[in-house]
This record gives sequence, structure tokens and C-alpha cells, in this order.
Amino acid sequence: MATIQAAILGFGTVGQGIYQILNEKKDQLKESLGLDIDIKAILIRDKTKSRMAAPDVLFTDNFDEIEAIPDLQIVFEAIVGEDPAYDYLCKAIQKGCHVITANKVMFSKHGLELQELANRQGVHVGYEATTAGGVPIISTLKNILLVNQVQRIQGILNGTSNYILTQMRVQESSFQDALEEAKLLGYAEADPFNDISGQDAFRKLMILSNLAFGKQPKWDDVSIEGIGDITLEQVLGAAREGLRFRHVAEIVEKVDGSLHASVGPRLVGPEHPLYAIEGVNNAIALETDYMGTLTLVGPGAGKLPTASAMVKDYAEIIGKRTQILVTI
Amino acid sequence: MATIQAAILGFGTVGQGIYQILNEKKDQLKESLGLDIDIKAILIRDKTKSRMAAPDVLFTDNFDEIEAIPDLQIVFEAIVGEDPAYDYLCKAIQKGCHVITANKVMFSKHGLELQELANRQGVHVGYEATTAGGVPIISTLKNILLVNQVQRIQGILNGTSNYILTQMRVQESSFQDALEEAKLLGYAEADPFNDISGQDAFRKLMILSNLAFGKQPKWDDVSIEGIGDITLEQVLGAAREGLRFRHVAEIVEKVDGSLHASVGPRLVGPEHPLYAIEGVNNAIALETDYMGTLTLVGPGAGKLPTASAMVKDYAEIIGKRTQILVTI
Repeated sequence: MATIQAAILGFGTVGQGIYQILNEKKDQLKESLGLDIDIKAILIRDKTKSRMAAPDVLFTDNFDEIEAIPDLQIVFEAIVGEDPAYDYLCKAIQKGCHVITANKVMFSKHGLELQELANRQGVHVGYEATTAGGVPIISTLKNILLVNQVQRIQGILNGTSNYILTQMRVQESSFQDALEEAKLLGYAEADPFNDISGQDAFRKLMILSNLAFGKQPKWDDVSIEGIGDITLEQVLGAAREGLRFRHVAEIVEKVDGSLHASVGPRLVGPEHPLYAIEGVNNAIALETDYMGTLTLVGPGAGKLPTASAMVKDYAEIIGKRTQILVTI
Repeated sequence: MATIQAAILGFGTVGQGIYQILNEKKDQLKESLGLDIDIKAILIRDKTKSRMAAPDVLFTDNFDEIEAIPDLQIVFEAIVGEDPAYDYLCKAIQKGCHVITANKVMFSKHGLELQELANRQGVHVGYEATTAGGVPIISTLKNILLVNQVQRIQGILNGTSNYILTQMRVQESSFQDALEEAKLLGYAEADPFNDISGQDAFRKLMILSNLAFGKQPKWDDVSIEGIGDITLEQVLGAAREGLRFRHVAEIVEKVDGSLHASVGPRLVGPEHPLYAIEGVNNAIALETDYMGTLTLVGPGAGKLPTASAMVKDYAEIIGKRTQILVTI
């Protein structure tokens, strides 16, 4: 049986999740795809840290060593931040690799360029994990767009913010205590600024904008507000009136084709579709022309949901390739 | 540009919706698929009824005339009931056509056989519209199953029942008035027995069972209860206590591999994910191993949602074919 050679860039929570799922699902993937997968190398930041026993895997802090692997076909990228991730993925695509990324900061800015480059090279870019963690919003949106037009996207796109707002109301935790708990559970980044400032939700909204509308609004025109100013008193006061704070990202295409986007907290009542979305869940409502409104709800963060979205991208990309071979 | 020859079987609400969307989206489909589509024939029950002006379309009540069309490639089936729909689709597949169906009664029973037959003939079966109307649960479930296992499926699968239960609570309508309204709006079938008895939700649950678990429980072992015995007094009494009736279909795979399914009304409170699902909406929650619980909510019935799901199947099937041609 032929074997796909792969590399993982970044070995934090998500990178380790990819490695875990690829091992746990080895037999199932082999059977469904007709191909084995072999993790040849993992790019890490600190080579002196102890690693688990995987004698056949090259642990390196030098991307050149990964680029030099002959017959490398898949690169999973789970690094935080724009650089050097963008540079690595450009090089991987130019080498003829399919790339699969969870990096929303990089992809919200460079997504269209990377996809154009990949088209020219005849490879695929998987980016399901960039937006809403395990919720398959990217493949669902692609599927809907085959026939429907999307007019508005509205959702809770940051699981950490929603977790904090939920804990403040349910546990009467302070903002700071809820944030620390989110960090402990692996929901919040080590530096939670992007989560709580609304920047993370904004970046995901821009990725959805590219897919749904083929373009983005000017970033400076988007009003972005986080949850950092919401006090426990406000949360509990709202709850007494039957209302809940939700951090909502929204984008609408007007009839003249212009895009209007905003990110910020809102108070919603029991009839609002986002009222029941609790904890680390994300929710995305897509308003379409034929299909009405479709809403997806699921875990927006976490090691295994995010990593499973990336392995699913792998199975889709390789599945396409296999299908072609079989059909010929 | 090459043209796909298609036929529509059944020209009720859904059949007309297919025709409408294929015409309205003609240019978009042509551009994305690189292929035009031509509706050559429509199978109707009563040839004497007046039809809209479409001089190039053969309106016939004789399936043999459709089977005789040379180069027919796609058959959309929107007939009610098991026979003769199953017979027609077998013949279409044997002729080498891709088939796309909205017929849950037929597909819940013959789905696996039709797919096996299609595999042998090298054609595809689209059945997104059989389950939950416009909600893309079939493609989403296929996508999730690439990596995740599904352990439990729970949902509101009959839009008519949910519409009736909603109207009874919100408008204080009697069961009968709410049912008549559902018929007028095109949600309920002319004979609403399947909708309100739970049979319709049961059939959809069996289609999901085939896809998620590769098998079905014994039909006789499934407890099926409808909404016909729920009185306005019960609905309003529950509402005063903050509870809502929901008609829930559920299937679980136990660790020993056995399947346990049930369909019936339940009372749910504000924290339950199905509490907020109102009107003709359907909702399906999929419990998975890596991804946690993913819930989809959207219109479970209606002309355009259901028809757009069938046109989406068409775009997917033809898209695969085009991709292969392009890649070669």
C-alpha cells in the first residue's frame, strides 16, 4: 500500500492532537482512503524539550530540514501567528505539498493568495480548523454555495469569550477567574488578548467573508469590541431580567454588493437563536436565498475538535485524489 | 459547451421547485460546473392538467418514454411513496443515470440497495433532500464520518409536527387548525398521517441510521409515537411551567454495536438544545467521539429548501465528474 509522507508544523495542543488522531484512526483512514500516512517530521520551537518516544519522527526547529524531505505530500500547520507560518506554507505549496492549516491570523490575511498559489501548483489548501474549531462551517458553507447565495452570517466565533461569559453567569465567577479557568482547560491561548478583544472572532469572520462573498470589507471599517469591559454585576443584572450576554460577529452583504461587518457583545433573550449557546460552543447562522437560515452549533475550541477538523481536511483532500485514480 | 440531459419525476411542490431553481441558477451552475443542464422530460400523473409553457419539455405520464430518452444522465425523483418510485430509480440507474431523490419512504427501505446498484453501475445517488429538507445533514454527516464516529443522533425531523406544536403554544390554535394551516403553507402532505404519527420522522431516522452506522435497528423494535394525542390544554399547561413539547427522534449505538431508536413527544426546558427550535425548523444533534456534539438547525420542509438540496446534490455529483475530467 502506498504511503503519504506528512509533516506537522507546531507541536502545541493542536499539533499533538493531529498526531494523536492520525495514530488512533490509522486503520480506519487506511481502509477508507486506500493509503497509509507516515508522519516524517515535526517542526518544534525548542529542540531541548523532552519529546515522546517516536524514533522514526524527525523533531527539528529548522524548516529547511522539512522542506528537504523528498516526496513530502502533506503539511499540517498549527503554529500561532502570521510569520513565519505564511512563509512556510508558501514554500510547502511551491514544493507541491497539500497544506492544512488551523492558523486564522495568517489565513484571514493571506487565505486568498495561498489558495491562488495552490491552484497554480495543483494542490489543495484545507482550512476547516481556522474557523469555529470542530464545527465544519467551511465545508458546509462551500456545500451551500453550490446553489444558494449567502446574504448574512451571524455567530459566536470565539469559544473562550463564550465560555467566560457563561461561567460569569452560571458560576458567578469574576472575569479574571473565568479567564484563568479557560486557560487551564486549553481553550484560551497563553496570551488571551486575541480571544477577549474580539480580534480572534474578527479574523474568523474575515475568513468566512472570503469564502461566502469572495472578498472582505476594509478591516478599518469593521467595529470590533471585546468582552473585557463586561462586569460580573452587568452579567448577573442581565440574567435577572432573563437576558444573556453573547459576543456576536456579523457580516451582511447589501444589495449594492458592499459588505458591513461588526464584532461585539449583545444582550439576547430566550427567543434568540444564540441564547442557548453555552460554554465553549460556537454557533454560526447562515442566511441564504433558497434554504432560509441554517445554523451550526458545536465546540469552537479544544485539542481534539480542532485537530479532527484538520484530519478531516486530510481525508477529504486525499479522498479526492484517490477517487480520481479509481475513476480513471 | 456540453449539456447534461435531465428528467424530473413528479411535478408537485418539490418537482416544481427543482425546475424553478435550475432555471433561476442556470448561469451560475453553468459557470461553476462548466456544463449546461437541459430538462428533457417531466413525469406527471395527470396529462390533462394544464402545464406552464415549456415547449421543449416532454410532459408524460409514461415512465417508458423517459427511459427511452437517449443520453439521459440525471433523474430527479420527487414522487410520494415507495412504488413505483423504487422501480423507476432502479431502471434509471441501470440505464446509467445518476439519480437524486427526495423520497424518504422509498429510500428508508431501499437506500442501501439503490446505492449498491449505483456503485456497480458507476453512478451516484443523491439523497440530501430525503432528510430534514434544506438542512444539509447528509453531506455534513458524510463529512464528519471521514474521521469521527457518531454515537448518538437526536433531533426534530418533522417540520410539520414542530410547526403544529409551535402554533398550538404561540397562537393557542387547536391541533386541527394548526394542521390545516400547515397544509395551506405546503409543509404538510395532502395526507398528513405520516407527519403527525411520527412515521415520517422514523423514516428519516432510519436513513440517518444507514449512513451513520451502516445498518438499521429492526423496525418493529422502534417505539414510534406521534403528536396526535397532545391537547391544547397540555401545551398551554406546559408553557405556563416554562416547558415546551418537542417531537424527538433518537438513535444510539450501544458499546455492543446494537442500535436503540425511538420517536415521540418530550417536554423540554430552556436549557435543552431543542427548546429554541420553533416552527417548521428541523434540528439534528450528532454526538461524536472527537468533535463533541454538533447541532444543525434549519428549515425541515418547504418547496425551495427541499428543491435546493436536490439541485445541490446535482452540483456535487456533476462537480465530481468535472473535477475528474479536469484533473486528467
